[in-house]
Amino acid sequence: MTTSFPMNAGDDPYSYSKNSHLQREVLDGAKEMMKEVIIEHLDIKNMLSSSNKFCIIDLGCSIGPNTFNSMQHVVQVVKDKYHDNILEFQVFFNDHVNNDFNTLFRSLPIDRSYYPFGVPGSFHGRLLPSQSIHVAHCSSAIHWLSKTPKELLDEKSPSWNKGLIHYIGASNIEVMNAYVAQFEKDMEMFFNARAEEIVPGGMMVLISPQLSEHLLKFFGSSLMDLVNEGKLDEFLVNSFNVPVYFPSIEDMTKVVEKNDCFSIERIELTHPKSKLVDEADAKTLMINLRAVLEGLFINHFGSKIAKEAFTRTILKSDEISAWMKINYKKACQLFIALKRK
Amino acid sequence: MTTSFPMNAGDDPYSYSKNSHLQREVLDGAKEMMKEVIIEHLDIKNMLSSSNKFCIIDLGCSIGPNTFNSMQHVVQVVKDKYHDNILEFQVFFNDHVNNDFNTLFRSLPIDRSYYPFGVPGSFHGRLLPSQSIHVAHCSSAIHWLSKTPKELLDEKSPSWNKGLIHYIGASNIEVMNAYVAQFEKDMEMFFNARAEEIVPGGMMVLISPQLSEHLLKFFGSSLMDLVNEGKLDEFLVNSFNVPVYFPSIEDMTKVVEKNDCFSIERIELTHPKSKLVDEADAKTLMINLRAVLEGLFINHFGSKIAKEAFTRTILKSDEISAWMKINYKKACQLFIALKRK
Repeated sequence: MTTSFPMNAGDDPYSYSKNSHLQREVLDGAKEMMKEVIIEHLDIKNMLSSSNKFCIIDLGCSIGPNTFNSMQHVVQVVKDKYHDNILEFQVFFNDHVNNDFNTLFRSLPIDRSYYPFGVPGSFHGRLLPSQSIHVAHCSSAIHWLSKTPKELLDEKSPSWNKGLIHYIGASNIEVMNAYVAQFEKDMEMFFNARAEEIVPGGMMVLISPQLSEHLLKFFGSSLMDLVNEGKLDEFLVNSFNVPVYFPSIEDMTKVVEKNDCFSIERIELTHPKSKLVDEADAKTLMINLRAVLEGLFINHFGSKIAKEAFTRTILKSDEISAWMKINYKKACQLFIALKRK
Repeated sequence: MTTSFPMNAGDDPYSYSKNSHLQREVLDGAKEMMKEVIIEHLDIKNMLSSSNKFCIIDLGCSIGPNTFNSMQHVVQVVKDKYHDNILEFQVFFNDHVNNDFNTLFRSLPIDRSYYPFGVPGSFHGRLLPSQSIHVAHCSSAIHWLSKTPKELLDEKSPSWNKGLIHYIGASNIEVMNAYVAQFEKDMEMFFNARAEEIVPGGMMVLISPQLSEHLLKFFGSSLMDLVNEGKLDEFLVNSFNVPVYFPSIEDMTKVVEKNDCFSIERIELTHPKSKLVDEADAKTLMINLRAVLEGLFINHFGSKIAKEAFTRTILKSDEISAWMKINYKKACQLFIALKRK
């Protein structure tokens, strides 16, 4: 059973739509590379044959505004490349069925130059008929696992992650192994589905930020504070593991090669300009993380403990900023451009 | 500027999802005809050429469950006709951008045999690239005008509809003329868009119920009661006109012929079995109407007056039932099957 916890819905102060600056920086950092790979590697004449429909999907789009920005960018790059006014663009906005599609649709840009569609469902499974997509895009999303690895839920397992909420900071290597195994299973499903859906010659760009994962531990320590104060059962912390895995170049190369339907046109670790990270703006980063993680926390701990943990962590922003200044060098993200063989 | 007032969202007691029995009866009544026209008139071999994607759209789908029922029916009829397992079905669920797509997506049947998509936007305009659709379906929706005819909003116009909220029951012929003119303008846009979107040989089935329009007058009289009690300004009633027009066979023939891109394969006024109408179940019918009209009423009168008008009208159910037994004979609906030339 796949689990999913969407970004915070609507547009209130803790909503994702108001708290996605970090994801925006990620996208801005990737725009130029995105343009280059499309210009160098996309061969539209062979792909389209008799039809004029050009189909783009944003996998794990959430609710905007970032997705509108990237989709318009892809449309514009393709238009500029082909100096072609006869193409009709379809943009498929995909996310879990419990994503807030109402907010997404209601904030669609008026001046868009494409036909928009909502595609509800997990990108770990099939979403579209075969050979439907010319460019697939997935930013700040493949690091979400389809579920928490089940070994992490078993107190008797060697992967029991005592006192922590993620593999980062865990000295127990079995914890990391459980995350990696789940990631590989998920990516197998992901690539099998995309191999069917993307036309031969079509492209897929994956962008995976590695900016804020170290900050997860501060939420973990706020939870442990609550345990030490007797307000929370430690079992609940031990059995909670944020289901995100940040892949390395080697991880991604391995899953792409295993699938064998895509060629890697470009893969690199880049350092996007991130004002938030450079300035160690922990407060904004933590509020961003809250918008992303709140649903997940509430599901496990209930609303009261979740809110208490977020409030306490955000109050530690100065301390976190100080930590960031010493420990962080640069923001970084993985950029991968693939072509369907 | 197009206005739109979606059916009541969510799934509470006055939601459309819990109050769409009448629309369900309409669809059940049309299922057999739908099957016949697809079997007789759809020529899939010529339409699909090299692709296996079969695309169906439900125009003005609202939030289910009716739309799932009709879409699965169309898929099944096409499958049965072609004994073909290689077709991949795409179903496009269209409604206004402020429709509750979240509820729609979350209630998608698990065992569906198609890929679902949400298409936000008015069906009076373009929704899809050219030649994208093989079967278009529109039930209980084309009677919605894109807006209230502007003449009806002008106190000095000969179409000023004093004391009433619809053309039904109006002795002033100018009121009816204003509705007809708006309907013809809307249908011109509707058919221009569909002519582009539907492939040559593709079909469109329109189902327009004429069951409950006479019941609108009871809401009008509840509003006038409030005027007479000094609780509501009469101007607000006079300037309010429910933007629905129930076309005749002649109306539809005229708009189709003007457009000239579709041939009429079948057009008839039918009498679906309607338990609600046969049994003069005014209470259920009025609650159904409430789920459909509440957004529109609240927008014009505010929440307090709207709720008061609905409550009062539903309290008159016995009186309305008695009226129905004398004045209603049978439920009826317009069924139209068209083929793209």
